[in-house]
Amino acid sequence: MAGSTYGTIFKITTWGESHGKALGVVIDGCPAGLPLNESDIQRYLDRRKPGTSSITTQRKEADEVEILSGVFEGRTTGTPISLIVHNTSQISKDYSEIASYYRPGHADYTFDEKYGFRDYRGGGRSSGRETIGRVAAGAIACKILEALGISVCAYTRSIGPVEADMSKFNRQTILETPTAMPDAQASEAALLHLDAARQENDSVGGCMECIVEGLPAGIGDPVFEKLDANLAKAIMSIGAVKAVEIGDGCQTALRRGSENNDTFRMEHGSVTKATNHAGGILGGISDGNTVILRAYVKPTPSIFRTQQTVNQSGEEIQINIKGRHDPIIVPRAVVVMECMTALTLLDALLINMSAKLDSIVSFYHK
Amino acid sequence: MAGSTYGTIFKITTWGESHGKALGVVIDGCPAGLPLNESDIQRYLDRRKPGTSSITTQRKEADEVEILSGVFEGRTTGTPISLIVHNTSQISKDYSEIASYYRPGHADYTFDEKYGFRDYRGGGRSSGRETIGRVAAGAIACKILEALGISVCAYTRSIGPVEADMSKFNRQTILETPTAMPDAQASEAALLHLDAARQENDSVGGCMECIVEGLPAGIGDPVFEKLDANLAKAIMSIGAVKAVEIGDGCQTALRRGSENNDTFRMEHGSVTKATNHAGGILGGISDGNTVILRAYVKPTPSIFRTQQTVNQSGEEIQINIKGRHDPIIVPRAVVVMECMTALTLLDALLINMSAKLDSIVSFYHK
Amino acid sequence: MAGSTYGTIFKITTWGESHGKALGVVIDGCPAGLPLNESDIQRYLDRRKPGTSSITTQRKEADEVEILSGVFEGRTTGTPISLIVHNTSQISKDYSEIASYYRPGHADYTFDEKYGFRDYRGGGRSSGRETIGRVAAGAIACKILEALGISVCAYTRSIGPVEADMSKFNRQTILETPTAMPDAQASEAALLHLDAARQENDSVGGCMECIVEGLPAGIGDPVFEKLDANLAKAIMSIGAVKAVEIGDGCQTALRRGSENNDTFRMEHGSVTKATNHAGGILGGISDGNTVILRAYVKPTPSIFRTQQTVNQSGEEIQINIKGRHDPIIVPRAVVVMECMTALTLLDALLINMSAKLDSIVSFYHK
Amino acid sequence: MAGSTYGTIFKITTWGESHGKALGVVIDGCPAGLPLNESDIQRYLDRRKPGTSSITTQRKEADEVEILSGVFEGRTTGTPISLIVHNTSQISKDYSEIASYYRPGHADYTFDEKYGFRDYRGGGRSSGRETIGRVAAGAIACKILEALGISVCAYTRSIGPVEADMSKFNRQTILETPTAMPDAQASEAALLHLDAARQENDSVGGCMECIVEGLPAGIGDPVFEKLDANLAKAIMSIGAVKAVEIGDGCQTALRRGSENNDTFRMEHGSVTKATNHAGGILGGISDGNTVILRAYVKPTPSIFRTQQTVNQSGEEIQINIKGRHDPIIVPRAVVVMECMTALTLLDALLINMSAKLDSIVSFYHK
Repeated sequence: MAGSTYGTIFKITTWGESHGKALGVVIDGCPAGLPLNESDIQRYLDRRKPGTSSITTQRKEADEVEILSGVFEGRTTGTPISLIVHNTSQISKDYSEIASYYRPGHADYTFDEKYGFRDYRGGGRSSGRETIGRVAAGAIACKILEALGISVCAYTRSIGPVEADMSKFNRQTILETPTAMPDAQASEAALLHLDAARQENDSVGGCMECIVEGLPAGIGDPVFEKLDANLAKAIMSIGAVKAVEIGDGCQTALRRGSENNDTFRMEHGSVTKATNHAGGILGGISDGNTVILRAYVKPTPSIFRTQQTVNQSGEEIQINIKGRHDPIIVPRAVVVMECMTALTLLDALLINMSAKLDSIVSFYHK
Repeated sequence: MAGSTYGTIFKITTWGESHGKALGVVIDGCPAGLPLNESDIQRYLDRRKPGTSSITTQRKEADEVEILSGVFEGRTTGTPISLIVHNTSQISKDYSEIASYYRPGHADYTFDEKYGFRDYRGGGRSSGRETIGRVAAGAIACKILEALGISVCAYTRSIGPVEADMSKFNRQTILETPTAMPDAQASEAALLHLDAARQENDSVGGCMECIVEGLPAGIGDPVFEKLDANLAKAIMSIGAVKAVEIGDGCQTALRRGSENNDTFRMEHGSVTKATNHAGGILGGISDGNTVILRAYVKPTPSIFRTQQTVNQSGEEIQINIKGRHDPIIVPRAVVVMECMTALTLLDALLINMSAKLDSIVSFYHK
Repeated sequence: MAGSTYGTIFKITTWGESHGKALGVVIDGCPAGLPLNESDIQRYLDRRKPGTSSITTQRKEADEVEILSGVFEGRTTGTPISLIVHNTSQISKDYSEIASYYRPGHADYTFDEKYGFRDYRGGGRSSGRETIGRVAAGAIACKILEALGISVCAYTRSIGPVEADMSKFNRQTILETPTAMPDAQASEAALLHLDAARQENDSVGGCMECIVEGLPAGIGDPVFEKLDANLAKAIMSIGAVKAVEIGDGCQTALRRGSENNDTFRMEHGSVTKATNHAGGILGGISDGNTVILRAYVKPTPSIFRTQQTVNQSGEEIQINIKGRHDPIIVPRAVVVMECMTALTLLDALLINMSAKLDSIVSFYHK
Repeated sequence: MAGSTYGTIFKITTWGESHGKALGVVIDGCPAGLPLNESDIQRYLDRRKPGTSSITTQRKEADEVEILSGVFEGRTTGTPISLIVHNTSQISKDYSEIASYYRPGHADYTFDEKYGFRDYRGGGRSSGRETIGRVAAGAIACKILEALGISVCAYTRSIGPVEADMSKFNRQTILETPTAMPDAQASEAALLHLDAARQENDSVGGCMECIVEGLPAGIGDPVFEKLDANLAKAIMSIGAVKAVEIGDGCQTALRRGSENNDTFRMEHGSVTKATNHAGGILGGISDGNTVILRAYVKPTPSIFRTQQTVNQSGEEIQINIKGRHDPIIVPRAVVVMECMTALTLLDALLINMSAKLDSIVSFYHK
């Protein structure tokens, strides 16, 4: 099992390597009747596309998506949707050097140990390009969530020491700044910080956050399939993420119960909470408040300094990584976080439809 | 799907409520031939048993496990192992009050929203007693890992502001201190801190850590089933956990690549790393170094202060929770973390057996 | 993976051996709000209980079921339902002889090859008693199907050469005759046939049939999860079943298209079919007509004649099986077929709820 | 869930419609290190290609497969293998007539009921072209089985009343006769029979058989995941199959135990059986003898006669199906049966690797 399938009802299977012919995804279990065309998906892919600013690699990749199946007369048919993105600018260069050694912070060594050898061209399957399939599928999940009145929004919370000021939160800014920060001013500061790092041939880590609004209470399951557990897996499965928080996360470990409990209260005749330290999830099930997730991302492992490592012959050597690499992973990973969150929520929503006998009886006695 | 099944090959299904007749677990896919008796399991259950110190509830629960199937002549047969723990001291008291309102920080409200009603006696399925099945199954997973030379060890890293000094790490101390800390001195300080909190009718959060030694490189899968992603899910599925870190976790977001990369080097003819910021996992696959996980746990939501909340009729009310509740969740959750980690690793090890064609051919041509 | 879990949303896990302490099942994903008590389940278990007539083993087994979890105040809570049946009359006799050799037609040899050894007492996990868990869970599935207006009815179609005359079909007769035939007269003839076989120390095969009424059109999935494919698996997973037919089954291979096609027509304003050769399923999806399944069951392998076999030391030996064994498997397997069919249909119904976007949107905008 | 994923460890996901842009499959969990190129797969696809004889449709489809990922330097890498076959000759004709009514024996009506509408061009997802993905993936499974010394061979057993004489069995003949029969003489007779049917504008049913040699004893699981249960599902999931038999199948229902039991005996120091009525499987687990499967296939539902049916407006109408259709399904389905069998066996073999603790310990202590 290479573990390239995700989801129970809304199930996606991604495929493809950094320097292969193409990458793609098959979405099985998409409900029938959703209006869908390539542009619905393309605008998500464009958010992870490189070459659009100074802080992303200057590699030019068109990353144009094509729908191969599952859509008829403009609507999904309920059968598998196959999406493909061709690799167009993968220059056939000499990889023989990189083939023989293990780059620090990369999966070269662990792939070799697992599989006996690896596609060493640009990271192969462990490349960030693997997320193309996730984003393409996630775009469809987002469109369905929208139809259910649920919005998912991820953004860069911090880059190195520079943190977005949430009082200046602007959703449009996320899409417009190269940092994907919701605060234009912090974004400017972050760009300066990145510039400094790059001049030192170094890279920077950061934090991304995702908020979900409109999710009804009652979604998620109480034991192993807790909504927060599945979100943690979804987010931690994005390369370079080293920590995941729900709501106030790590901070809650330093609190007293009296500070951390969210008091229930009534608002417009509905149950709500006075605070949201829990991040919208109690006992693994959504409570109707905003779901809040945070992911901490390590700095790009590819840096332009001489590094110590070993090669396949077991010799300690010094290497200098070449090529084009983002000085930070976060801004392009933000849309991946948004998509993984959307995929996880949608699956939980579909699974939840059979939670009560009453709902099932009305469904079939319609 | 109530989501009570965990694992792909080594698959467990837990059941039972806090105040039902019994709780238990069925383990399907346990390899045949493992010597197993009740005491192998009991010593893990005893570590989560309440009533053994001043910082756990004074409820007396025997929590004695019985093997109902799957073991014959002292060894596992390969067929399902059914384990049961009877609830013995669940006094049939009046729960009518608690039935009508939603305790802050608990899953009362979300269960009602999901299922239409709930077993309100002592938390029902959302009670900490649900973890009995996890620990019973985890004990078996640990025994198999031992046979493979892999050790899993969890402990309390901090309680409120009191952190264990890892230079004083002593594995035996974990089992002997009521705090499950590996540092006896910090444990004393933590007990004082807990005492103070309890006198204020309050509760405390904390952090637990788990280290895995002996795990070979190459375990885990590269995309959605990354070893760290599955561990994050496993740990986040433990009630009250609000954040999960792998290796240096959140700290990596503040680092430069040059600081965070772990340099590969040779030691006794084997590839190893000079540092282990990554926590033993690269690209979702184990790298042969110590796996390091951390979980941040919120303070016990049941506190003995008057709290504001709402009831099922939509009235804002004030409540006073009665009963016996731990002032901190962490010390008894440590063994749950150990078990969830063991279950996740064992499953990954079994799945990994078919990663290379060569291994499969030698297996069947034996 | 010992493969003891069945279903995707309504998921059951069975456990237990013929001569262990108990057998049981955990049902996960049962919708909340179903009124349920032990007697709902007991009446299904009673249909597979031995010792009730001359054609079943005279072993006395109470097979009383107990609900251990998942039901509160008389209704299912949505959390796992654990059911247990204690083995009461499993006399601790000497099995050392049977332990050493392989009974023809039994799984003794294959278990030893797979697991290295086996629980040889009365067949262990490969005993017919394994179906207790299936029937207990199936009883709940049947109760839910009833609430949806769907009835599932299995019966003995033939015993050896004696076939039920379907023009005399009487549902009550199925429950009253020891043969589980729906035709009292054929049942008498079958009993005579069985008597003759028993006097020759031999056993007899037979055929069972299952019909489903009220299943709406549109249930099942078009590719690997075809409704008939899943039913075939469900039925073939019952020990001793060697063939499965849907609708006219094998007969269709001898037909012309013009004979075999079911013509669509209108009846009371609804689409229906003039004939039902297809057995209610087209392209893997239910068409609203009666679903018809047939299973062919081999004769009981335990016969009271001297048989040739080999033992674990690789010696060819002669054996005489002792004990109490039914001369035919079919009558007690009928309720197992009914239950496996019900479990499969219910799961398909729950999965189907997310087939159309419109349904999902109305579900959440309710 | 559209149910387009099959397998647990060796997991395939198929996609594509009859008249879409392309069809394909993603294989996840293929072990690393298998030499693989397009021609390994193409020769399986060629066996299901139409237009090669008088008894298949004269439609010309190139059905050329392309490997898009998962193979590097001529060997599988362990990551997903994406295979694509472009639809080249799907003429854009007028389907408006077929769109409005339900063809007898087809899935038109059931798709509409399930999904609300359907891709009506040439059957869409319910077309026989859906099996392209199965065959492409099955070719890889077959290649791995070969490396393990296991051969899978399917062929036409009968066409209408014309049955192959198994004493004339010739494996090469299967690949050379248009009927895929292993007996050249029966094949001639079958062709005459088909010719007669076609002249009457009718179609014919038939039976196909599959034999597996070299499968070791001990493969398969004892309860729901019995090897025969999974094979039954695999085969019944092929469109138009209405019955599945294992070993002597339906015949066993008419036998006595004394006739049907296969006696164990020793041969060259190994356990074997004197007969093989069981078809190589006992208690759901392989016994080391030849596995024998049979599938009964209905006649092609598309016939060139006027048929009665209804349309979407609920009117009873008469239709005349046009186009090019095989007069029998079996010959082209034979390779699909072979592939579905191979996929099922391979998955069972991989799962079986963790059945014994000893094997796991030696695997990791290698």
